[in-house]
Amino acid sequence: MKVLGADIVTDDMANIYATFKGSEDLPRIAVGSHCDSVVQGGNYDGILGVISAMEVAETIVTKKIPHRHPITVMIWTNEEGARFDPAMMSSGVITGKFDKNKMLASKDKDGITFGEALDASGYKGDEKNRMNPKEYMAFVELHIEQGPVLEAAKMDIGVVEGVVGMVNYEFEFIGQAGHAGTVPQRMRKDALYAASEAIQYLHRELDKLDSKLVYTTGRIICSPNVHTIIPDDVKFTLDARHQDPKIVQQVVDVIENIPKELAKCKVSYRKLWSRKTVAFNEDLVDLVEKNAKEYGYSCMRMYSGPGHDAQFVADILPTTMIFVPSIGGHSHCEIEKTSLDNCWKGANVLLKTILDIDKK
Amino acid sequence: MKVLGADIVTDDMANIYATFKGSEDLPRIAVGSHCDSVVQGGNYDGILGVISAMEVAETIVTKKIPHRHPITVMIWTNEEGARFDPAMMSSGVITGKFDKNKMLASKDKDGITFGEALDASGYKGDEKNRMNPKEYMAFVELHIEQGPVLEAAKMDIGVVEGVVGMVNYEFEFIGQAGHAGTVPQRMRKDALYAASEAIQYLHRELDKLDSKLVYTTGRIICSPNVHTIIPDDVKFTLDARHQDPKIVQQVVDVIENIPKELAKCKVSYRKLWSRKTVAFNEDLVDLVEKNAKEYGYSCMRMYSGPGHDAQFVADILPTTMIFVPSIGGHSHCEIEKTSLDNCWKGANVLLKTILDIDKK
Repeated sequence: MKVLGADIVTDDMANIYATFKGSEDLPRIAVGSHCDSVVQGGNYDGILGVISAMEVAETIVTKKIPHRHPITVMIWTNEEGARFDPAMMSSGVITGKFDKNKMLASKDKDGITFGEALDASGYKGDEKNRMNPKEYMAFVELHIEQGPVLEAAKMDIGVVEGVVGMVNYEFEFIGQAGHAGTVPQRMRKDALYAASEAIQYLHRELDKLDSKLVYTTGRIICSPNVHTIIPDDVKFTLDARHQDPKIVQQVVDVIENIPKELAKCKVSYRKLWSRKTVAFNEDLVDLVEKNAKEYGYSCMRMYSGPGHDAQFVADILPTTMIFVPSIGGHSHCEIEKTSLDNCWKGANVLLKTILDIDKK
Repeated sequence: MKVLGADIVTDDMANIYATFKGSEDLPRIAVGSHCDSVVQGGNYDGILGVISAMEVAETIVTKKIPHRHPITVMIWTNEEGARFDPAMMSSGVITGKFDKNKMLASKDKDGITFGEALDASGYKGDEKNRMNPKEYMAFVELHIEQGPVLEAAKMDIGVVEGVVGMVNYEFEFIGQAGHAGTVPQRMRKDALYAASEAIQYLHRELDKLDSKLVYTTGRIICSPNVHTIIPDDVKFTLDARHQDPKIVQQVVDVIENIPKELAKCKVSYRKLWSRKTVAFNEDLVDLVEKNAKEYGYSCMRMYSGPGHDAQFVADILPTTMIFVPSIGGHSHCEIEKTSLDNCWKGANVLLKTILDIDKK
C-alpha cells in the first residue's frame, strides 16, 4: 500500500488505515475486514476481505480509475476474540459499544492483558486516527459466507442485508447422583436423560417456527460424568438466530415455556447473551445486488448468521457486506476454502460497489 | 486383634489376615472387607465390613464362644481401584483373575506404580500367606447396600444372592461440525441431537425388558463442545446390569440393533467391558436369611449391583455377603451413612452366620 502512495496510520486499538487520496476533499470510503483468526482456523475468513480491499485499491491506483472520495483500506483488530474476549473488540470500542479500559484489561489464558499485548505489538496508534463518522461516508466488507447456503443454491455472491439477531441460553438439569448398579430405574432422577428430553423438546417446538431459524445445542457439561454414576447435573447451551425479531421472541417464548421438571429433574435456564438484528444500508445492499447482476454473477439476498465488525460500524456509517461461498460450508477450520473464481468475483463486485459509492 | 491373640500376617498383595485359632485343626472361616475408598467417598463402604468382622472376632474371643474352625478377619487391598486400576485388584490376583505383574505395573496419576506403593506401604508380605482354598472353608462379607432398595422396602438386612452381570458400552455419533449461525437446520448433521435421540431410543427399548434391569448413560463427551459450533462427535457410555444373563443378552441385542444412522449422523458402538453374573453359595445365602429371621429382622433377598471382592472369592470358596441399608441410597459420597441400629443388626447376622458355618 505504501509503494502505491497510501497514507498509513493506526488508531489507539491498533486498527490499521491505509488511505488513498481522492480528487476532491470529501469523506472517505472505507473497505476492509480483519486478519486475525480462530484457533485452528482457515486461510479465508477475514483475510479475503483485507486482501480484496487491497486489490481493489491497487486496481484503482494502478489503472488510474478516477475517484472523488479518498479510499481507506482497513484492518480491524481482534475480530474473533480468540485470544482476548470479546469478539469484534476494536470495532466495538470505536463505535462506542465497549468500554476501552475494560477491553485493555481483558486477559488471555496466560494472564497477559490486551493492553500489554497492544503495547508490545508496535501497532498502537493515536485515538485521533479512529474511524470518525464525520470523515467517512461508507464501509463495505467482503467476507466468506462461513456456511453452506450459497454453495447449495449454486450462487456466486451473497448480497448481505444484515446480521441476524440471536439469543444464547444455558439450560441446567438437576437430578440425583447414584450408583449405576443399585438405583432402580423408577427411582432415578437422571439429569442426562432429562437433558436429552429437553433437546428433543426444543427441536420439536423450534422446528415449528420458521425454516430460516437456526439453533444449536453446541456445548454440554455432564457431572460427575463417570460411567458408573447417574448424572446429577447437566447443562447445555442453546444458540438461536433469526433476522426477524418476532421469530427470535418466539424462540424465547419456547425457552421460557420449557417444563419446570423433566424426567423428575429440576429444569432451569438463564440467558447468557443476545444481540439484536442489524440491517445494513438499503442503498448499499441494492448496489451490491445490481453489480453482481451486471457482472452476470448469480446472487441471492441473505442475512449473516455470524457476527462481523460491519454490524457495529453499521450503527455509525452506511455499511454493507458481500459474501462469497465457502466450499462445503466449512469455516473456522483448516479445510475452510473459497474457489479462486469466487474470490475474484467477490473482489470484482467489491470494486464496482466502491466506485458506485464514489459517484454519490 | 493382636491383644486378643490373633496371628496377623499379610500376603504379597498386602491383604491382611488376623487369625484366631479354633479348637480343631480345620480350615479357616474368613470374614472381612476392604478399607480403601473412592475419592470423596464416605465412612461406611468397606470399613463397616472390616470393623464388623473385628467385632465378631472380639465377641467370640472375649465371650469365649466355642468354635472349631479358625476365624480369619481380613482386609482386601485396593478394592475400589481409586488410585490404581483395576478395582478388586488383590482379590483378583489371589483368585487368578488378574496377572500380578500387570497389577504391579499399574500406575497412579503421578506415575507411581502399584508395586512401588506396595513396597513403600510396609504391608507387603509373603505369597504363602495368600488365601488358599484348601485352607479355608468359607468367606463372608458384610457391606452397605450402596443403593436405595433396602431403605425403600423398609428392610434391615439384604440377603445377597450374588452379584449381577453387567455390560459396558460406548456409543459414538459422527456428524458434521458447522457454524451455529450459518448452517440451515435441514442441512445439519448434529451429533449431540443424534446422541439425544439414541438416549431416548435406548430408554424406550430397555424399559421394555425387566423391572430389575438397571442401566446408566453416565458419561458424555461432546466435541468440539463450543456453544457456537454444531457438535460433530459425541460419545456416551451405557452401563447395564441384571442378575439374569438372558436379560443381559437382551440388552446387548438392543444395543446391537440400534439404527446405524440417527439424525443423519453415523452411529457406532463398542464394548468396553463386561462381567458375568456371580451366584453366591446357596447354603450360605440360606443361613444369612435364617439368621436375619431368627433375630426378627426384616430381610429380603437381592443381588448386588456393584462389584465386590466376594464375587472373585466365590470362584474358589463358598462365599456370601450381607447387606445393610444406606440412608437415602447414598454411597461413594461424603453423606454415605448407615444407621447404628442397622450396623449392629448386620454385625449380629454376621456373627450368627460365622458360628453356624463353624458347626458344619
